[in-house]
Amino acid sequence: MDTKTPSTTNLTDAQRIDWLRLIRSDNVGPRTFRSLVNHFGSARAALERLPDLARRGGASLHQRICSEAEALAEYSASAQLGVSLIAPGEAGYPPRLAVLDDAPPLLGVRGAREVLMRPMIAIVGSRNASGAGLKFAGQLARDLSDAGFVIASGLARGIDQSAHRASINGGTLAVLAGGHDKVYPPEHEDLLAAIIASGGAISEMPLGHAPRARDFPRRNRLISGASLGVVVVEAALRSGSLITARIAAEQGREVFAVPGSPLDPRAAGTNDLIKQGATLITGASDVIQAVEPIMERPIELREPDEEALAPEPDASDRARIVSLLGPTPILLDDLIRMADASPAAVRTVLLELELAGRLERLGGGLVSLI
Amino acid sequence: MDTKTPSTTNLTDAQRIDWLRLIRSDNVGPRTFRSLVNHFGSARAALERLPDLARRGGASLHQRICSEAEALAEYSASAQLGVSLIAPGEAGYPPRLAVLDDAPPLLGVRGAREVLMRPMIAIVGSRNASGAGLKFAGQLARDLSDAGFVIASGLARGIDQSAHRASINGGTLAVLAGGHDKVYPPEHEDLLAAIIASGGAISEMPLGHAPRARDFPRRNRLISGASLGVVVVEAALRSGSLITARIAAEQGREVFAVPGSPLDPRAAGTNDLIKQGATLITGASDVIQAVEPIMERPIELREPDEEALAPEPDASDRARIVSLLGPTPILLDDLIRMADASPAAVRTVLLELELAGRLERLGGGLVSLI
Repeated sequence: MDTKTPSTTNLTDAQRIDWLRLIRSDNVGPRTFRSLVNHFGSARAALERLPDLARRGGASLHQRICSEAEALAEYSASAQLGVSLIAPGEAGYPPRLAVLDDAPPLLGVRGAREVLMRPMIAIVGSRNASGAGLKFAGQLARDLSDAGFVIASGLARGIDQSAHRASINGGTLAVLAGGHDKVYPPEHEDLLAAIIASGGAISEMPLGHAPRARDFPRRNRLISGASLGVVVVEAALRSGSLITARIAAEQGREVFAVPGSPLDPRAAGTNDLIKQGATLITGASDVIQAVEPIMERPIELREPDEEALAPEPDASDRARIVSLLGPTPILLDDLIRMADASPAAVRTVLLELELAGRLERLGGGLVSLI
Repeated sequence: MDTKTPSTTNLTDAQRIDWLRLIRSDNVGPRTFRSLVNHFGSARAALERLPDLARRGGASLHQRICSEAEALAEYSASAQLGVSLIAPGEAGYPPRLAVLDDAPPLLGVRGAREVLMRPMIAIVGSRNASGAGLKFAGQLARDLSDAGFVIASGLARGIDQSAHRASINGGTLAVLAGGHDKVYPPEHEDLLAAIIASGGAISEMPLGHAPRARDFPRRNRLISGASLGVVVVEAALRSGSLITARIAAEQGREVFAVPGSPLDPRAAGTNDLIKQGATLITGASDVIQAVEPIMERPIELREPDEEALAPEPDASDRARIVSLLGPTPILLDDLIRMADASPAAVRTVLLELELAGRLERLGGGLVSLI
C-alpha cells in the first residue's frame, strides 16, 4: 500500500449512477464536475441545473445530458467486462491520482485492485525505440518491480511494452486512452490480458470509445498522476513522452530521464529534459533514492475548493464578461480584475460558457472562447 | 585576447635564471616557491637560505639546489627548441592559469604565444574512445574553434587527438606531462608539430623529463586551469578524465559532460559527472552559453599572500609541531590550534619540513609526514 492514503470515500449505487450521468454529459470535464458538485451539493442536483446553465451560456445546440438508462447500460456493460467504476478515495483508485485537481470522478478499473494502491513509477518512451532502449527499459522495470514498485505505462509499442512485460509478475498498470473494449494498439490485447492477471488497467473513457490523437495527452496525465515519478527512456524531440514529462512536472511529480549519445536522435528528447532539470538516471537505484523521501510524506489532499459560484449573474455582468473574452487566451485572474464583477460571478459565467461548449480552459489559469 | 587580463610582469634575465634555479631545486613546488619569494623578497635571497631551512627541517640527504650553470644550460637548450620560459603575467602565459595558487612560476611555452592569451575550452576524454565519441569530440572542437575559442587538451590518443586535430587551424594548446623534448605518446610528434605551427604547447617540466604516471594528474591541473571550462567527452569510471574534472571543479572551472547510454561503459564516467552536478552538453552552443557570462567578468587575481613566515622558530616549538604530525593527514588549521605556537611559526616549520622532503601537502589544507 502507498503510505498514508487519503481518507476513503464510498458512493452508494444511486450516487454512482448520478456521477456517471454527470461526467458523461456534454462539456462536463473533471474540473467542471467538481465545481458543479461543490456548488449544488450533489451530482443529482447539478444534473437538474445543467440545461439552464448551458442555455444561459449561449449553447447553440441542445446540450446532451446522459440519461439514467444510458448510465445504467454503461455500468452493466462495464461490469460484464470486469471493469469497476471507482471514485477517488475508493479502494482501487490509485491514491496519488485521486488527489489531482483533474482526477477523473469515475475511473474504469480492471484487474487486481489492491495492486493499484501500491507506489508506482511510470516508464515511458519511444514507440520505435532502439534495441538498447528496449533492453534498458526492461531491466529498469524488472529492478523497480523487484523493489516493490508497480510500473505504470501506456501499453504502446516499444518502451511501454518492454516496461510492462518485464514487470508483469510484480504488477504493472496499463493506462488506456480509449475505452476498456477499444485496446490500442489492437495487437496488444494479449499483453493486456497478461497485465490484468496480476496487475491492472485503467481508463476514464466510456466503453466503445476508440482513442483519438487528442486522447493520448489527456491519458498521459493519468500515467504521471498515478506515479511518484516518470522515467523517460528514449524520446526524440517533440515526442509524446516529453508531453508526459511536462505534465508530470506540472503535477509535482519527479521527472527522470535516461541519457544517450548526442549523435543518437532518439536520445535528443531525454538529454533535453536533463538540461531542463530532469534527474539523469542510469539505473533503478537512482530512481529509488529520489522517490524514497517522497514516499515517507503523506499524500497531499487537494485544497478544499474555495471557488464559490454565484446565483444567476445579471445580464449586464454576463455581457461584460463575455465581451472581455476572445480567441486569445486570458488569465482568469486578469479577467476577474477587469470584469468589475465578483469572482463568483465571473466563475459562474465561465461555467455556463463551458457547459455551452463555448469556453476552453488551457491550463495555467488561461481561458479562451472557442 | 581573454578579457581583462591581470596586470603584466616582466622578469629581467637575471631574475629569470634565479626563478629557474629555485623552482628546479629539490622539494620546491609552485606553492613553496611563492611562499619563499614572498618571505625572502626574491628568488635569489630564497636560494641563499634554502640549505639552512632544509637542514632545520631535518633533511636526511643533501638537498640538491639547482646551480646557475644548470639553469643557464636549461634556458639555452629550451631556446634552441623554441621554448620560452615565461612567468605568470608575462605575454604567452595563459591568463587564467596565471592566477592559480599553484601556477608554475615558469612555464615552458612553445608556438604562437598570442594564441595562448585567448579564451580556452578544454576537451578531454578516453584514449580508447568509440567512433561516435571521436566524431563528437572533433565536431565540438571545430565548432568551438570557429566561435573563437582555443581548444586545450593533453595530446593523448583518442579524444585528445580528435579535439586537437579539429582545431588546428583556429589554434589549439597541447599541455604536456613531460619536458618539451619528451613527447608522449611518441607517435604524436607530427601532431605536435602541426599544433605549434598555429597554436602552442606548454609544460612546467624541464627538458629531458620523461613523463611518469604521477605527472599526468599534475599536468591535468594546467589543462583545466588554463581554460574557462572542461568538456569530458567519453570517460569510464575511475578514468584520468574524471580527475581533470574534479580538479577543474576545485579550481572553480565549469565542468561539462557529454551523456551516453547507461549500457555503454565509456559513458559511465560522464553520466556520473552529470549526476554530481556537471552540465550536460550536446553541442558547442551549450558550452558557449555557459561560459559567456564568465568571460565578461575580470579574471580574479590571487589574494595577496598574507601567510607570513617566522624567523627561526625555537627548538621546542619545532619539536612540538613535528610531534603533532604523522602519516595521517591533519588540517593545517587544526595543527595551528593544537601547536600552541604562532601561525607564522607553524608555517615556517612546515616549509622547512617540505624543503627537507619530509612533508606532503594533500590539498584542501591537509598535510602529513612522509
